[in-house]
Amino acid sequence: MLNRRSFGKHAGAALAASLLSKQAFGQQVASTTTPANPGTPQAVAPSPIGPPLQVGMLIYPGMWTLDYIGPQAFLAGLPNTKVHTLWKTLEPVVAIQDVKMHPNMTLADCPKDLDVLFVPGGTPGTILLMQDPEVLSFLADRGSRARYVTSVCTGSLVLGAAGLLKGYKATSHWNKRDLLPLVGAIPAEGRIVEDRNRITGGGVTAGIDFGLLISARLRGDHAAKLLQLGNEYDPHPAFDSGTPAKAGPELTAELEKSLAAGHEKMRLAAVVAGKELGIT
Amino acid sequence: MLNRRSFGKHAGAALAASLLSKQAFGQQVASTTTPANPGTPQAVAPSPIGPPLQVGMLIYPGMWTLDYIGPQAFLAGLPNTKVHTLWKTLEPVVAIQDVKMHPNMTLADCPKDLDVLFVPGGTPGTILLMQDPEVLSFLADRGSRARYVTSVCTGSLVLGAAGLLKGYKATSHWNKRDLLPLVGAIPAEGRIVEDRNRITGGGVTAGIDFGLLISARLRGDHAAKLLQLGNEYDPHPAFDSGTPAKAGPELTAELEKSLAAGHEKMRLAAVVAGKELGIT
Repeated sequence: MLNRRSFGKHAGAALAASLLSKQAFGQQVASTTTPANPGTPQAVAPSPIGPPLQVGMLIYPGMWTLDYIGPQAFLAGLPNTKVHTLWKTLEPVVAIQDVKMHPNMTLADCPKDLDVLFVPGGTPGTILLMQDPEVLSFLADRGSRARYVTSVCTGSLVLGAAGLLKGYKATSHWNKRDLLPLVGAIPAEGRIVEDRNRITGGGVTAGIDFGLLISARLRGDHAAKLLQLGNEYDPHPAFDSGTPAKAGPELTAELEKSLAAGHEKMRLAAVVAGKELGIT
Repeated sequence: MLNRRSFGKHAGAALAASLLSKQAFGQQVASTTTPANPGTPQAVAPSPIGPPLQVGMLIYPGMWTLDYIGPQAFLAGLPNTKVHTLWKTLEPVVAIQDVKMHPNMTLADCPKDLDVLFVPGGTPGTILLMQDPEVLSFLADRGSRARYVTSVCTGSLVLGAAGLLKGYKATSHWNKRDLLPLVGAIPAEGRIVEDRNRITGGGVTAGIDFGLLISARLRGDHAAKLLQLGNEYDPHPAFDSGTPAKAGPELTAELEKSLAAGHEKMRLAAVVAGKELGIT
């Protein structure tokens, strides 16, 4: 055992103590001789010994909070992992439904080489982000070297606008997935879509599934399963209406109607981004 | 249609526009003659016309953010619903993993009659809360009249310490469920446990399932299904280790070991609370 003290905290946080044990990471410790190869997903997770993993999670005004907190609950529970909550300044950003989120690092201070670059979704703020040169050039730069370039929900359209999904299979919120080709991505079925080192999730709650999966990619299946147990992730929805196919055409049409204006604004932003990228 | 303007926001938020339509709430509109009966769950959801639903969600230092943000993403998407994020002061509280959360109302300003009283979990802060007379008397007061008294994760132990679960079936995080009898509750199986107007959820991610269910209780199945589709809640975990039974004895023992110190502290807090309530 490397560290036997209990953090005396909540299940998820206290996992760190457990996860730091040699026992939990026996296999991964053996793999430290495999060098990290930026741009290529690793089949074997690196050791929790050594420099911490660097995770950069963008937050922004008008984002959807659950898109971020779902993955964060997993990533921040991984051993020897630094989660940087990134924005232009350190002022709180106002997410959807008036939830204020606090960055803990500016874009300028973000490490150059990240293990994970992550962008959450959220229609109004996301549309602005797709047209924000400062954010797009930051993402293009860090994304060019990050080990994993990732998103949940409409965050994939921001990655796309930054030129990071050209020729990659990707997904987004089901209502916005059709916009992906405008920024050069290939829309694909699936709650989580992996193509080389790009991992994109579907809408909002897909962030929990993404958090579980990226934990496994970073620290191995055992660590991910411990986090799943700590977060008691054994979903049992009372209904089965989480996709258009399951919800049926009437419910879907009703929701699409109320989403139409946002869809059109995001389409226009994607067209502009695509033109700047020389795609459309 | 009562309101056809699109909010032009994210899927979840934009739902409000859709949900305000007469079409969506035909059945519920017809039920407005049924008076609300505090303390008794209603089979038929009230109309979105009339005074807004009053939802009081407690936040506190050392809470687990996902416990709160999961249900919040559903509750804040319901039509004609006010979500009050409550704490002693309006200063931000520091949740687990250094996430700062902002209250938008003090306990003193909270409406006397709530449709939903909700408490999230999180071991270190939760233990302090179980011994905090100001918070416990607030919960006992609002909980005595609230239409639904609810929690996710170890929030149920706070409800219990406030005397709100005496003789009620309830659940908690799987690692802390055994403590419920100390505050007079009857531990029950199930990701969500409903007993009369008490609705308690399991650990952390159970808050998503709780959010979906309470949406249906408040505004009907149709509204809940629209939110499920908007939040794309169609879970597909990469692993199946979300409960001790599924994770198996080895993984569970490993995690329990790291949670033992927190469990003991929470047990002592439950014993003290139980004594004050005349239970143990």
